Amino acid sequence: MEADLLVVGAGIFGLATAYHYLRENPGKSVLIVDRMGDVGQGATAKSAAAFRANLFTSQTNRLLAGSSVDFFLHVQEKEGHDLGIMKVGYLVLRSREQFERVSEVAKMLEKMGTVRIYRREELMEKLKMNYDFSGDEEAELLNIMNVDYGIFGFKCGYMDADKLAYYYRDRIREMGGDFQFNTKVERVIVEPEVKLGIPREPRAWQKVKFSGIETNKGVLKAKNLVLAAGGWSHLLLDPLGIDCISKPKKRQIFTVRPRTEEQRALLYNPNFNEEGVLPFTILPTEHYIRADKRDGTLWFALSDEMRPYSTDDEPEESFYYDNIYPIVVKYFPQLEGARVDNMWAGLYMINSVDHNPVVFRRANMVVATGDSGSGIMKGDAIGRISAALVQGKKEAELFGGEKIPTDRLEVVGRSLEPENFVF
Amino acid sequence: MEADLLVVGAGIFGLATAYHYLRENPGKSVLIVDRMGDVGQGATAKSAAAFRANLFTSQTNRLLAGSSVDFFLHVQEKEGHDLGIMKVGYLVLRSREQFERVSEVAKMLEKMGTVRIYRREELMEKLKMNYDFSGDEEAELLNIMNVDYGIFGFKCGYMDADKLAYYYRDRIREMGGDFQFNTKVERVIVEPEVKLGIPREPRAWQKVKFSGIETNKGVLKAKNLVLAAGGWSHLLLDPLGIDCISKPKKRQIFTVRPRTEEQRALLYNPNFNEEGVLPFTILPTEHYIRADKRDGTLWFALSDEMRPYSTDDEPEESFYYDNIYPIVVKYFPQLEGARVDNMWAGLYMINSVDHNPVVFRRANMVVATGDSGSGIMKGDAIGRISAALVQGKKEAELFGGEKIPTDRLEVVGRSLEPENFVF
Repeated sequence: MEADLLVVGAGIFGLATAYHYLRENPGKSVLIVDRMGDVGQGATAKSAAAFRANLFTSQTNRLLAGSSVDFFLHVQEKEGHDLGIMKVGYLVLRSREQFERVSEVAKMLEKMGTVRIYRREELMEKLKMNYDFSGDEEAELLNIMNVDYGIFGFKCGYMDADKLAYYYRDRIREMGGDFQFNTKVERVIVEPEVKLGIPREPRAWQKVKFSGIETNKGVLKAKNLVLAAGGWSHLLLDPLGIDCISKPKKRQIFTVRPRTEEQRALLYNPNFNEEGVLPFTILPTEHYIRADKRDGTLWFALSDEMRPYSTDDEPEESFYYDNIYPIVVKYFPQLEGARVDNMWAGLYMINSVDHNPVVFRRANMVVATGDSGSGIMKGDAIGRISAALVQGKKEAELFGGEKIPTDRLEVVGRSLEPENFVF
Repeated sequence: MEADLLVVGAGIFGLATAYHYLRENPGKSVLIVDRMGDVGQGATAKSAAAFRANLFTSQTNRLLAGSSVDFFLHVQEKEGHDLGIMKVGYLVLRSREQFERVSEVAKMLEKMGTVRIYRREELMEKLKMNYDFSGDEEAELLNIMNVDYGIFGFKCGYMDADKLAYYYRDRIREMGGDFQFNTKVERVIVEPEVKLGIPREPRAWQKVKFSGIETNKGVLKAKNLVLAAGGWSHLLLDPLGIDCISKPKKRQIFTVRPRTEEQRALLYNPNFNEEGVLPFTILPTEHYIRADKRDGTLWFALSDEMRPYSTDDEPEESFYYDNIYPIVVKYFPQLEGARVDNMWAGLYMINSVDHNPVVFRRANMVVATGDSGSGIMKGDAIGRISAALVQGKKEAELFGGEKIPTDRLEVVGRSLEPENFVF
């Protein structure tokens, strides 16, 4: 059996690709393979599932996230499928110096009505935290910066990663798509387009195709292949000599259950959104805080830049006490004593060049990767681009009708606006 | 003992960096460490040591190679140090379709007087080879293209990699620089700028410095570090979470000793240069041929795109018989029966994005890598940029006086003209 399309990875990129491919090609056979037991159980489940439609300095990222978030809102509000979307907003707290680096984009977004820029005085009325650390030697040692500005994004918040993954899974199944779970992909099979029956094929002068994959459960063949393997992509691509200019680092999330009245007041802040919870908040140190309304927990994370590139994804409790608690408690003294309630870790795929996603085609294989940390919120658009690439199209149509060239996220000759809103 | 500058790698990038740093900072202590027994014994020695001053589509590459080649010519012609430079020219053979992809740059270079474009009819008088494969089924199977154009570069040729490396080595020693050979670097040591004596330093919030290296012969400390480790760079950088967007692939060179009159006539072609040998010739299939006048051998190589990314650098004789011989013998039937006389392999560091070199600074460490395959011919300019970066300069002065911003080859926010003359 040879599938029309074989997708490696049932995360958000793989799911959206299969979904859009099937919508455009009803009746084609699509098989999605994943090493976990269900969809979206890797980095997708382990992310904060946050979204921001506009809060990017890269125009491409704004386009991708804008289309995807509009689609997600459409699914929840018009189609009536609950994706757990909570429009709590994003609150990006910046020091004066940090703000100046992004002020041009921030002011443009404010003119467009999608963000509001707060000065410190306005913020102080809305959020109880430390804003000024002048003369605080400990803060200086911790490289803590003052809070001078807040950039508040309206069409932003978080959603339920599981619900989103299940939405795609169920639609894919309705259209006849198939899943094979608990299947680990060992390698991509390369074959010459024209087999000669000589030793050591394919030779360097032969045109090749990627005819399938070898898994722990045997060989699976396909006419077209999509590699959406997240943090494991480079392990499948390096043996093929294909560079996806993205590498994985571990990213951990720690949850804390408020124990005091003051901690609860931090979580259930009524001053920013209709949900009455703290917005998704990014500190000047790039720590982020997510107030989970359903769980009643505060989530903390930090993308530590010096973290090794590796596929290790074990959470380390010490990371919270070493690197998160000392910082957030300086900004929010009401968190004094806040201990880890739960934690998990996933692999984030980082493209250092511009922090935009990476999507390209080689022979009959499409690779969609990179950009973890803001992948879910662009996932639907990435799926549209990948699906168009599988079909050999020059353009993909985004939700809302805007067109984007399918080679926009190509590695070779890449020249994309760098993303400076990286959290 | 803490050196002012510690350079990892005594290849062309490391040597040029140490040389220019010492010229600008006489009296500073410089130590160059290499795993081999002398300078330039890695990829530098194993390359074809070819150079082309102008034959690049990337303006940056033309600038870097132009400065370096002018410097090398100056050293040999003005300073009187023999670098083994042979100005045999480059002959880039292209099919019509291939030519059209680079014709804009080629025509610009022709106007500048640095290249000459030959049409097939003119070439046929100068070089005995097959130009047309219409109706040749075997050629079609081998994906062989016709030769329709030749782009001949004047300020091009090859040199003696050893002599160049020894030139830098001896100047570095004259200026007091030191070498430590047979030393394998295990890892770069990261330390907090301000040590607190707490467990698990450096924490994520601490500013760090790279204080030295751990080697198989102990720890070496330095105020500044330059990583010029070629194909091994990513192995030292991945644990630091630093991306050099370059990965290594094996590149092999096979030499053939002419046995017949016709083979000798191919090597000793009098029609292109004063040396009376075949120019450094690139076939439409990207195989290249170097006529070594001193050895009286023909060198053959091919950068096979599908080669895995890996640090394996063992030559494979079968590669010649599988992938080189069948092609070159179609273009040059006079090579019939030509067998491998000698072979070697090195690691080429490939930056897929734009095929320009990669040079950047993080804290007190400068990384210089990427761009193997045309590294030697840009090596001197890379050394000037790295040395300027070590000193925290915003600009480096190239040979001839032109200035270049030291962040031009930075990874983050990279936006360089892609190089389409990749052989």
